Amino acid sequence: MEYKQFNKSTVIDYLKNIKEVMDFFEDDEIVAEEIGDGNLNFVYIVKSIKDSDKAMIVKQAVPFLRCVGEEFPLSRERMTYEIRALQKFYNIFPNFVPKIYHASEDMSLVAMEYLSNHIIMRDGLIDRVKYENFSEHISTYMSATLFYTSSLALSSADKRELISNFNGNTELCKLTEDLVFSFAFMDHETNDNANIEGNQKAKELFNDLEFKAKILDLKYKFMTQNDALLHGDLHTGSIMVNEYETYVIDPEFAFVGPFGFDIGALLANLINNYIHHVVVTRDEEFQEWLLSVTKEVLEKFMNKFLNYWDQHNDSALFVDGYLDDNTLKIYKQKFVKNILKDSVGFAGVKMARRVYGVAGVTEIRGIEDSILRADAEALALKIARKFVMSYENIQTIDEIMEIVKNAR
Amino acid sequence: MEYKQFNKSTVIDYLKNIKEVMDFFEDDEIVAEEIGDGNLNFVYIVKSIKDSDKAMIVKQAVPFLRCVGEEFPLSRERMTYEIRALQKFYNIFPNFVPKIYHASEDMSLVAMEYLSNHIIMRDGLIDRVKYENFSEHISTYMSATLFYTSSLALSSADKRELISNFNGNTELCKLTEDLVFSFAFMDHETNDNANIEGNQKAKELFNDLEFKAKILDLKYKFMTQNDALLHGDLHTGSIMVNEYETYVIDPEFAFVGPFGFDIGALLANLINNYIHHVVVTRDEEFQEWLLSVTKEVLEKFMNKFLNYWDQHNDSALFVDGYLDDNTLKIYKQKFVKNILKDSVGFAGVKMARRVYGVAGVTEIRGIEDSILRADAEALALKIARKFVMSYENIQTIDEIMEIVKNAR
Repeated sequence: MEYKQFNKSTVIDYLKNIKEVMDFFEDDEIVAEEIGDGNLNFVYIVKSIKDSDKAMIVKQAVPFLRCVGEEFPLSRERMTYEIRALQKFYNIFPNFVPKIYHASEDMSLVAMEYLSNHIIMRDGLIDRVKYENFSEHISTYMSATLFYTSSLALSSADKRELISNFNGNTELCKLTEDLVFSFAFMDHETNDNANIEGNQKAKELFNDLEFKAKILDLKYKFMTQNDALLHGDLHTGSIMVNEYETYVIDPEFAFVGPFGFDIGALLANLINNYIHHVVVTRDEEFQEWLLSVTKEVLEKFMNKFLNYWDQHNDSALFVDGYLDDNTLKIYKQKFVKNILKDSVGFAGVKMARRVYGVAGVTEIRGIEDSILRADAEALALKIARKFVMSYENIQTIDEIMEIVKNAR
Repeated sequence: MEYKQFNKSTVIDYLKNIKEVMDFFEDDEIVAEEIGDGNLNFVYIVKSIKDSDKAMIVKQAVPFLRCVGEEFPLSRERMTYEIRALQKFYNIFPNFVPKIYHASEDMSLVAMEYLSNHIIMRDGLIDRVKYENFSEHISTYMSATLFYTSSLALSSADKRELISNFNGNTELCKLTEDLVFSFAFMDHETNDNANIEGNQKAKELFNDLEFKAKILDLKYKFMTQNDALLHGDLHTGSIMVNEYETYVIDPEFAFVGPFGFDIGALLANLINNYIHHVVVTRDEEFQEWLLSVTKEVLEKFMNKFLNYWDQHNDSALFVDGYLDDNTLKIYKQKFVKNILKDSVGFAGVKMARRVYGVAGVTEIRGIEDSILRADAEALALKIARKFVMSYENIQTIDEIMEIVKNAR
């Protein structure tokens, strides 16, 4: 079917012809309502008229950046990779990914589960909501998606097929390469921190050549290290939560890249939230809770990743019988420690780039008091720099937590 | 056109309809003669009947391993990657790759320059022929092909397109993963050293778990590190030479992989030849010449790679203006040193795997006297182990040469 850009009326005409969608609605009359939080795409809630509890989310990509307009072209094929990643992750572990009712790469459209009882995690954390099951959930999600799409689980041929399915996500990978790893650390028109003009701290950062050379190492790793299928943008704005459940959404940046990039993104965003509470709410109890959750996420990730690995004796990497159990155990522990190191490095880049680069995080960029905002920015940069400069030497999770605590 | 397996008569019928081929022969009558050195493929010399100096090589892949027969299936698509690699490398630096007159991925066939005045380098080196231009040529070939197909030269989109063109070379990549990195270090039916049964040295190698864990690191790097387009099997049997010229042939193992793998393959094969002369001919002058050439190859590679890089200010990795000249210079030197380290690691794997694994090198496996052959095998394993155990700490080319010299 040829691509056509829908509106809230024509999208209904399209959906009425999709059996899986109408099965869900039990052939009720349906109506679509546009919701405004799509920066890139058009997003609709589609509901049954007679029973509004029956609802799904329908998302369509258009060949431009929706929040800017047609003058900012961005190929709609990004939805192809979002669809493929949602399906892949759902197949690995359905608990943490919205159910898909219908997907069409031709139409750049996906119809999926409406998470009506969940909120964006970033908003919840700003409001000091404690998600007690989060570390358990997200560590399972990350360890399962990363392990089962890596050369530690897949055969050589399956790994290459996976790469081939995501290798074309060129535009969004390039966005990350530019915006996360380069432009945020130099004078560049995309930087949109309102206080950047004449800002001495920004100048210092842009002239911190030792730091920027380390960032270049991490950028190279991002571009060339094919470990596993990544979400690609795993910040707390891509996570929908409530007390009981955790869902990871919006994997349009998905590609086969380095293990540490997803974990690092999450780590950076948890710490950015911690910084917010250090500087703004000064709620020490919530700060403690955030740090303990951060630690748990990393610990549980490592343990679960190793557990999955122990269930696998044959993969692209490992031929059964090649090593004895003891040597293999040491090998695996070192391997997972290297993932931890890279995660710290990527977390540092992610934190630092949010300070002056495009699309700062609400927790810091959104602080209205300019003095407090400058304090938060300084703390973020201090932790980020320490992460980037020392990630290769990190041995334990406690060392990471010490860096965060001692930066105050 | 649908694939059809040719013989020496039907291949002529096919070639007569290819304009580029008949232009080369100026419409002379042509005849094909099969040559026997194709282990994998059918290889013909096609000549003009009235002027046998007018000749070209025509190579066709069949969907099985030619030297074994139809009972050993191997997909003919390997020729697709050989064709693409030959064309890519020729476009980067035509001096070192045979000219292609015609190529058809559909027919798994390539017609190319006949190198009538050149011999397989391995044979020349065994006969103690000194190729005085070799280090200059091969260092240019390696630095140019690796640099210009890497993220240091290409844009992000072009790099992804390159990956996409070679990602499907699954079968041959898997052959390397299995035969080079795994089976040669364990009891496995593919190992074809006639003396392996009850061999104490082989047992020691297969039980050397520390060494094998390091090999696993290098295998992981081989499988997941997307630096540049590699030849993939750059031993001295893939190089045709004479006093004046050097040609690299047979890139059917081509894929986007780690920089160090091609350099390591060449390094391993030069050292295997050195070992032959240490043990068999005991020609000290030729040994000296081999060591000095090996050193020159590495030195010139590093210098030329850096020179190409200095001519490039903008690439997937590097946004112009991101670093100052001095920091960038230090960054590049460290980067190239890391290539050297990996090359030593891969050279160690390549040397070690040739001792008991399938397809040993003539220089060692071909030694008829069993005591001398055992000496050569022991020396190869000693150097290989040192390379694999210490590659991450190598700082200079001299350290590599010391390892080789001190192993005697």
